[in-house]
Amino acid sequence: MTVSRRSVLTGGALAGAGALAGAAGATAAMAQRAEPVLPVVADAPELGSVVVPFHDARQAGVTTEPPAHASFVAFTLPGGTDRRALGRMMRLLSDDAARLTRGEPALGDTDAHLAVLPAGLTVTFGFGPGFYRAAGVTDRRASSVRDLPRFGVDRLEPRWSGGDLLLQICADDPLTVAHAQRMLIKDARPFAAVRWVQIGFRRSPGMHAPGFTQRNVMGQLDGTANPQGEVMDRAVWVTDGPPWLRDSTTLVLRRIRAEMETWDLLSTADKENAVGRRMDSGAPLSGVDERDEPDFAKLDDSGLPAMPDFAHVTRAHVTDPALKILRRPYNYDGAANAAGHPDSGLIFAAYQADIDRQYLPIQKRLAERDLLNEWITPIGSAVFAIPPGCAPGGWIGEQVIG
Amino acid sequence: MTVSRRSVLTGGALAGAGALAGAAGATAAMAQRAEPVLPVVADAPELGSVVVPFHDARQAGVTTEPPAHASFVAFTLPGGTDRRALGRMMRLLSDDAARLTRGEPALGDTDAHLAVLPAGLTVTFGFGPGFYRAAGVTDRRASSVRDLPRFGVDRLEPRWSGGDLLLQICADDPLTVAHAQRMLIKDARPFAAVRWVQIGFRRSPGMHAPGFTQRNVMGQLDGTANPQGEVMDRAVWVTDGPPWLRDSTTLVLRRIRAEMETWDLLSTADKENAVGRRMDSGAPLSGVDERDEPDFAKLDDSGLPAMPDFAHVTRAHVTDPALKILRRPYNYDGAANAAGHPDSGLIFAAYQADIDRQYLPIQKRLAERDLLNEWITPIGSAVFAIPPGCAPGGWIGEQVIG
Ligand code: HEM
Ligand code: HEM
Repeated sequence: MTVSRRSVLTGGALAGAGALAGAAGATAAMAQRAEPVLPVVADAPELGSVVVPFHDARQAGVTTEPPAHASFVAFTLPGGTDRRALGRMMRLLSDDAARLTRGEPALGDTDAHLAVLPAGLTVTFGFGPGFYRAAGVTDRRASSVRDLPRFGVDRLEPRWSGGDLLLQICADDPLTVAHAQRMLIKDARPFAAVRWVQIGFRRSPGMHAPGFTQRNVMGQLDGTANPQGEVMDRAVWVTDGPPWLRDSTTLVLRRIRAEMETWDLLSTADKENAVGRRMDSGAPLSGVDERDEPDFAKLDDSGLPAMPDFAHVTRAHVTDPALKILRRPYNYDGAANAAGHPDSGLIFAAYQADIDRQYLPIQKRLAERDLLNEWITPIGSAVFAIPPGCAPGGWIGEQVIG
Repeated sequence: MTVSRRSVLTGGALAGAGALAGAAGATAAMAQRAEPVLPVVADAPELGSVVVPFHDARQAGVTTEPPAHASFVAFTLPGGTDRRALGRMMRLLSDDAARLTRGEPALGDTDAHLAVLPAGLTVTFGFGPGFYRAAGVTDRRASSVRDLPRFGVDRLEPRWSGGDLLLQICADDPLTVAHAQRMLIKDARPFAAVRWVQIGFRRSPGMHAPGFTQRNVMGQLDGTANPQGEVMDRAVWVTDGPPWLRDSTTLVLRRIRAEMETWDLLSTADKENAVGRRMDSGAPLSGVDERDEPDFAKLDDSGLPAMPDFAHVTRAHVTDPALKILRRPYNYDGAANAAGHPDSGLIFAAYQADIDRQYLPIQKRLAERDLLNEWITPIGSAVFAIPPGCAPGGWIGEQVIG
């Protein structure tokens, strides 16, 4: 049963041992290295064999449901990198991503056995401003893809900021993410230096009912007001323009430390006022259910706005669907220091068609005034174009530097 | 349905809202802090609501099936810590662990909403040699609980070594682990400084068929020859002696870096020779199936031992069931460096009744000669007694310092 599901998902035929090797992606190159036939069957129950298609007009890993584990890897291009080198690199990495996301080893995979459980793996490529400069195609960069202005709340550290190339690797299994990351870094490193790696998590698969909003490390239901369906698609994707922009999007990636020590001192009511939503149900303070629209005109019993003026949600709220952003955050949790203070926060990933029109006005309002600011500190910041996807045989970036 | 399962598992009654708050662990202290009733139902599908009992003659988290995520937190006791302080700390931490493992908030929980999914949570306490010294009960320390001798292969770093107190926190969900860790550290830190934190993972829940052996970051099937059932119980637990030893065990925790750069250069045949088992099936090189007993007398076609003399398995193998160890390793995967070299390896946790009789002979043989040594480097080492468990109302350590 697992076999048949896998064969449907990967499009492979599983009639005999030779075909099994085929389904597991044993290419000519692999065969030369005399890899044994992979034990696909025993190793892949339903959840592990979920495949999210890599080939599409738009890249996966953006409007697809966020799985449990993510690794964000940023690279710096060395001086002298040119368009041809970038083309070779992106062909190689796109081929790796296409195979790995199908649950097949990468062409040069040194550990084919770890490739067999895709677990919903997505590999999403982002190009920083430096990528366009190196390729000599700055005219093809979406104009809003550039470093954000400095905000008063920022305490940015270079070790979490910037980057010319980004790999966002997501899957429901941490070993799948680790393996895909290792293979992709191995193929990228002849061309680029690793600048930073950020590893994040959400709830494990199966912990939540589908559609249930996750909680973040601060204990808040996080994701409620995200745009959905068509509204989301229109807010996120560029739908016209030249080929290097159509079906692209942009990513703002902020590493935001949660000041858990002081957050923990707050009463539930104070936590709720800072956000504008209830801690238990996620309902806006003006309503009852998580999905109720916040009513910013409503007054509470004492005649004050039920949604506090400076609450995070009040300040962040956007009514025009075209101006919404898609938040796809992951939690991080590093080692506590000697005093026992945690190192926790969000790897805050926001997708939108246009950073200037959508992200920046929200970020400016929040930086100006947001009660939550006292308990969150941006310590990293990076901005990437997410170029269009590619068809089988194509590669990510072909419309930009092809 | 989820509700009924939870109520069975937690022993709580769920007749009305008041009872619901009861099942969610709203204690008198919580009620005073006017916490809202927790949305237990929506937040807890089957996998998340699995409860592993905390109260038992023996601590959980040892012979229980290892879940997907683990955090190992070691503490240093400040000079002047005495038996009474340790007693207060252990009472507090035991109470936290008992609640959290049931999916209830800790008494002083500052984020009760993150406590509702136990996801198989276990909290296992370990006492290093310094714990017994501080308490003035060195006569109650199992004699084999002391720093390991130095081995030629060791490249130990203080930042991963030693510790007076250990918390081993395991669950199938990473946010559950992060929350339990945060609450436990908060209650421990008035008494002790965090010395190191090591965070590890295995496959996500549902990725493997039950009983299927996991692969580690090196791609090997890891866990095959572990003792099972009664043999495991007899090898792991101390079954007689005074109350502070009966139902105790010991833990050797080694942080072992995997030299992935050079490991990746090996052919499959060379990898298999280093371990003595096949990479695909995990079968011993003398056999066909993973579960075949290695046959060290068997010769291959060229007249050489099928199991190479210096292979890891050949050197590590033990026939006497009483001398086996239980390996319960987790993978770690940190950030790659600028050159793209990974920071991966095992948090190698070995449980046995007696370190001197069981662990040390194996470790000595491996340190002397083990083909695998070229690709693994111990960089951390710590040794802990795992004291007996406790009954409801009791606390971990009561037999040792009570
Ligand atoms: C650690 C940092 C942050 C935390 C913990 C946080 C938390 C939250 C929470 C709990 C909500 C309400 C539930 C929901 O709709 O998801 C929310 C809403 C929102 N946040 Fe944040 N947030 C953070 C940073 C940011 C940043 C940097 C931005 C953008 C610059 C942002 C933009 C928004 C928006 C647009 C909404 C929806 C508002 C609405 O229309 O109702 N947040 N956030
Ligand atoms: C990164 C470090 C290590 C790796 C990657 C590793 C890997 C493996 C593998 C793949 C096996 C065969 C499959 C199995 O039975 O699980 C194995 C077996 C074993 N290993 Fe290790 N190991 C490591 C460290 C150690 C250490 C430090 C010890 C003890 C000092 C140890 C003791 C054993 C034992 C007792 C067996 C079972 C042998 C038998 O009876 O067949 N290993 N190990």
